[in-house]
Amino acid sequence: MTAVLERDSAVPLYVQLERILHDRIASGEWQPNQRIPSENDLNREYGLSRMTVRGVLTKLVTDGLLVRVPGKGTYVAPHKIDAVSPAYRGVREQLEAMGYATSTRLVSFVLEQPSSGARQRLRLSDAEQVWTIVRVRDVQGEPISLHRSHVPARLAPGLDGHDVVGEQLCVILEDHYGLPMKNVHEDLEAHAVTTAEARHLGMHRGEPALLLQDLVSDARGVPFEYSSIVFRGDKLRLRFDYEL
Amino acid sequence: MTAVLERDSAVPLYVQLERILHDRIASGEWQPNQRIPSENDLNREYGLSRMTVRGVLTKLVTDGLLVRVPGKGTYVAPHKIDAVSPAYRGVREQLEAMGYATSTRLVSFVLEQPSSGARQRLRLSDAEQVWTIVRVRDVQGEPISLHRSHVPARLAPGLDGHDVVGEQLCVILEDHYGLPMKNVHEDLEAHAVTTAEARHLGMHRGEPALLLQDLVSDARGVPFEYSSIVFRGDKLRLRFDYEL
Repeated sequence: MTAVLERDSAVPLYVQLERILHDRIASGEWQPNQRIPSENDLNREYGLSRMTVRGVLTKLVTDGLLVRVPGKGTYVAPHKIDAVSPAYRGVREQLEAMGYATSTRLVSFVLEQPSSGARQRLRLSDAEQVWTIVRVRDVQGEPISLHRSHVPARLAPGLDGHDVVGEQLCVILEDHYGLPMKNVHEDLEAHAVTTAEARHLGMHRGEPALLLQDLVSDARGVPFEYSSIVFRGDKLRLRFDYEL
Repeated sequence: MTAVLERDSAVPLYVQLERILHDRIASGEWQPNQRIPSENDLNREYGLSRMTVRGVLTKLVTDGLLVRVPGKGTYVAPHKIDAVSPAYRGVREQLEAMGYATSTRLVSFVLEQPSSGARQRLRLSDAEQVWTIVRVRDVQGEPISLHRSHVPARLAPGLDGHDVVGEQLCVILEDHYGLPMKNVHEDLEAHAVTTAEARHLGMHRGEPALLLQDLVSDARGVPFEYSSIVFRGDKLRLRFDYEL
């Protein structure tokens, strides 16, 4: 199984080792989240110095193929799902098109006073209320994202009579309330998950996540949905393509 | 200075408190990274129960305006710079247009065997080498991003004779090597910084960052630059606007 170092080759040994380890990951011999052999074991297996092996592992960590866990060892990085921004195309739709089994859990659905941030973004008057819908999306039985959506109650009376778990919110808003999304303003940042988010997402407090904040407006420029979505950093990668 | 709760108002007291604290942050009375008064002090100041104050603080943490630091207290979230993706417009150019003083430090500039990941993405033959340029960008004297760029040596002979600190790499590649960027494929993910990255960026290992990986191609679809950029999560936010 294991490829052999060619000691006569013009390609430096550390480069050969890096390619061999890369192949062991790419071929699936070493699976995502699996612990790989220790530096000592790799030294013995390939007959190289500890310095060389360590340098190669560091390069693979930098490249995102391996992850070091202090006190535990070196692991193959978790597999990340590649998706385009959900503003373009719903996350669920994308995941299903990729063949993943997805499901949605409703955490809460309430009518409430918006936070100041939501009030400003949705341009609400002082006393206006919003529907706040909190949902967790699971992929293959594991949580991947936490969605908090706010919709002005004035624009969507009776929204709580709809099935926001079985249907996409944007479809409900377009079909039943005449609110087709026309413009999406999106803010994307790295985010250390809070205790509450960690609980919903099966993470530890402070672990990295992507935080996406979408403000959705209709053709007249009236904002009607403000959503913040926390994606597990170890589960999802976003893809963009630009023609310049 | 402090706004007063209106106990006869129809607006619930916790909503009023949330708006008041929001204003203390938005007005700059409480500055980014400043510790705010303890829950006990806020109870006393506003005459509300500890439960109410805690609930409001949690809402502001969820909204990203405050950050809890275990064992230390609650802080106003750091100010984040809003930028569009660097694939559209260089980070430096954007920061300068916003009036920030920026500078670039060269960490290393070497000719080397690429990692397997870079070799695959840049479609290099087995023995081909790349220029690897590592730079740190500072804004107002503080590091904001770490840039690792790889350019096939074959496409840019003598690249190390150019000033990659004073000039933008894309400008050098276009002007001197006839490599105008036409297509950018970008992967964006949340990333826990490694020890080495943390050192360059003035962060702690494991803190959240945005990791952007850009593959830049010319009009014929030939990739000529592969860059990975680590942005401090507490310093930068990316903005996207879509018309659907």
